Amino acid sequence: MNIIQPSILPGFMELLPQEQVLFDQVKETIERTYRRYGYWPLDTPAIEKNEILFAKGGGETTKQIFRIEKGENASEQSLRFDLTVPLARYVAQHQSELSFPFRRYHIAKVYRGERNQRGRYREFYQADIDVIGLDHLSIINDAEVPAAIYDIFSEIGIPGVRVHINHRGLMNGFYTSIGVEDVQSVLHAVDKLGKVGADVLKEMLEDEGLDAEQIERIFAFIGVTDARGAEERLQAIAEAMPEDAPGADLFRQGYSDLMTIKKAMHGFGMPEEAVVVDLAITRGLDYYTGVVYETFIDGYESLGSVASGGRYDNLASNFSKQHMPGVGISIGLTRLFFQLREANLIAPEQQGYIDAIVIAMSDEEVPQTVALTRHLRDAGIVAQAYTEAGKLKKKFSYADAVKAQYTLIIGESERQEQTVSVKNMATGVQETLPWDDAIDAIRRGKEENA
Amino acid sequence: MNIIQPSILPGFMELLPQEQVLFDQVKETIERTYRRYGYWPLDTPAIEKNEILFAKGGGETTKQIFRIEKGENASEQSLRFDLTVPLARYVAQHQSELSFPFRRYHIAKVYRGERNQRGRYREFYQADIDVIGLDHLSIINDAEVPAAIYDIFSEIGIPGVRVHINHRGLMNGFYTSIGVEDVQSVLHAVDKLGKVGADVLKEMLEDEGLDAEQIERIFAFIGVTDARGAEERLQAIAEAMPEDAPGADLFRQGYSDLMTIKKAMHGFGMPEEAVVVDLAITRGLDYYTGVVYETFIDGYESLGSVASGGRYDNLASNFSKQHMPGVGISIGLTRLFFQLREANLIAPEQQGYIDAIVIAMSDEEVPQTVALTRHLRDAGIVAQAYTEAGKLKKKFSYADAVKAQYTLIIGESERQEQTVSVKNMATGVQETLPWDDAIDAIRRGKEENA
Repeated sequence: MNIIQPSILPGFMELLPQEQVLFDQVKETIERTYRRYGYWPLDTPAIEKNEILFAKGGGETTKQIFRIEKGENASEQSLRFDLTVPLARYVAQHQSELSFPFRRYHIAKVYRGERNQRGRYREFYQADIDVIGLDHLSIINDAEVPAAIYDIFSEIGIPGVRVHINHRGLMNGFYTSIGVEDVQSVLHAVDKLGKVGADVLKEMLEDEGLDAEQIERIFAFIGVTDARGAEERLQAIAEAMPEDAPGADLFRQGYSDLMTIKKAMHGFGMPEEAVVVDLAITRGLDYYTGVVYETFIDGYESLGSVASGGRYDNLASNFSKQHMPGVGISIGLTRLFFQLREANLIAPEQQGYIDAIVIAMSDEEVPQTVALTRHLRDAGIVAQAYTEAGKLKKKFSYADAVKAQYTLIIGESERQEQTVSVKNMATGVQETLPWDDAIDAIRRGKEENA
Repeated sequence: MNIIQPSILPGFMELLPQEQVLFDQVKETIERTYRRYGYWPLDTPAIEKNEILFAKGGGETTKQIFRIEKGENASEQSLRFDLTVPLARYVAQHQSELSFPFRRYHIAKVYRGERNQRGRYREFYQADIDVIGLDHLSIINDAEVPAAIYDIFSEIGIPGVRVHINHRGLMNGFYTSIGVEDVQSVLHAVDKLGKVGADVLKEMLEDEGLDAEQIERIFAFIGVTDARGAEERLQAIAEAMPEDAPGADLFRQGYSDLMTIKKAMHGFGMPEEAVVVDLAITRGLDYYTGVVYETFIDGYESLGSVASGGRYDNLASNFSKQHMPGVGISIGLTRLFFQLREANLIAPEQQGYIDAIVIAMSDEEVPQTVALTRHLRDAGIVAQAYTEAGKLKKKFSYADAVKAQYTLIIGESERQEQTVSVKNMATGVQETLPWDDAIDAIRRGKEENA
């Protein structure tokens, strides 16, 4: 028969079993935390109508879309490129059946035909939480969303996570107050600071038509030339700003909101050092209207932001006349996993996906091997029976390969005496025990490791 | 702004939050069981190259495929239509990095452009387990796979699950022994018995060119005209069959294997009544070569088989010269969920996705509401803070809507006394407690419910 070379498409992640277990552990930590925060699960179709996906107009996204060819019905359809558009469609469609604020998490694959490069994926998991209000939404929600992110990284065991916060209203107010006309455009330039450095940013701002004094004030604001902390800088700006300056009200409201949010972030359990007011982050996406977040790992800033989001004024404006403000944050899980592995911040456990493998020395011991495996499982122990024919060496090397915590062997004498030889693979200690004692020993070992 | 009517494509399932929680509970029961059996997780790309997906030739499946339009690279690509082809590709591609028998579970969405009808979905979850050997694979694996399915339904709380088993070798041997030449074709006819009834099947077999005696023997074999149990019938056939009859060896080996598998199914924990030898099931797919399974729920046979599979001789023949026999079973989870809900065999819990909702009576109580919510979460309690402005009535009706187990209220007096009013929503009992006592009470309540 003609053999087809087995391969997958470029830009798709596929893991070997041990790595997959690790990936799933990270994914489940995220899910468990989102649930503990009381966000509801959501699972929408991976395929949406194009009229839904392109409701906003699209732009760059349109070029990256994976379109579906399916003649049967007239609707044009594509794979989703994020989980936010499906959420907007969902809340608009099911508005009368939901309770608001509607809080949901969604961990699922999305698709973007990005340029193929290492660490960038065309199919990747996003892990999002969002809270959507009807007409109003308390800014306390804006504090809770990053607190969940902080908890997740703590549970994964990654220290030094810092959520950087800024506020669009505060920024709009400040830039307006110093005479900037096209604030959006200047924010796009400032967003590049980390990549291009202060000198290039200065040129970019000059190209935007700003004068030397305006640029000086911006550099002081974002912290390039003013070494004080952001909160001190903000306070000084607030005190110096005339009450009737253009943008002053916007600035003051944004400033006050940002401080309320910061305080509540601590209230939700984030330590002092984990919350960083950072007036240089702006978030590229234009629909954020209040707080914005980016998340960095101390010492691994080069990874970029590992969780980003913010407050938006009206989620579903394309699908409903109802005004729905919201706030959310997103982890790009597939890329994050790649980065954490590359930086060696996480690694698969040496042992333990399988608690116990039970080996039959010969066909004679198969019935007992099956029965013991069943009893182990009934006791909540992850157990596998090995009943293949073959030499002893092959059996033991398989037991090594699956990295079980315990290898259990039933040979002729164990079969006759209704016992089992139990080898603790971490310590190398081996003993022969009656079944019940073996089950107890493994269960105790499992509890100690948990 | 122009409003686009929010909707999804026909044939896709999307659930409201309470139903989604129930769906996830079923999905997690499946996953937890598969893991307890020691199957490893696998997550392959939803998009595969067409040369992989169509390696077998395709047939009916080709017409149902969701093709991707993505110009950038030359490879034609489509959404997978099952999890078996990706598994075959995976084991062939990663053969040198895997340990065999390779045991994996995979719970993920697949895509088929089926005719649109109630209860049939174009995007649906499959939940599969498979064990793949190199050259050989012990038939004890064939007993374990359905045992996992039985455990899953027990855990979901659905009684009366029966796994029907048959064996392709046994069937081939029997039909050959009575002079059938095109066994495959006759099996396809017999497969229709449940749908068309005995009279139509008789006509179909006549059309296949079988004579009255052959049809009589088939009807006795599959149990239409012989009221004895299948095992008694098999024994009688085995005793009557001349040793040198064509197909006799095949029949005898299949019969012996089927009995070994049945015995080991009981060894893995399935009770006597849960295993039914059923000589009328054949499985439509032609690649099964040994045991085949279908799973029925007592009293709900009209739902059809809720988990099906069997033994195949060579999984990855299109992708590798290595001979890889395997055995597996698949649950069509999306359809199963639809069916179990329709039959009212499962239902969402009245309360309890959220353990506790903490309500701030006014803005004054927000900081304490936030802090208490955090302490509840630290204690492993699923908690939500409700900090929206508005009338009391609105707050309480929200608490009702999210169906928390406990509603906690912090008003002025609770704030001043560092207490909280705790209402058990199931019993209606309300008491005012210090925070620690409230947390203890809720944790105890949660443990009792678990």
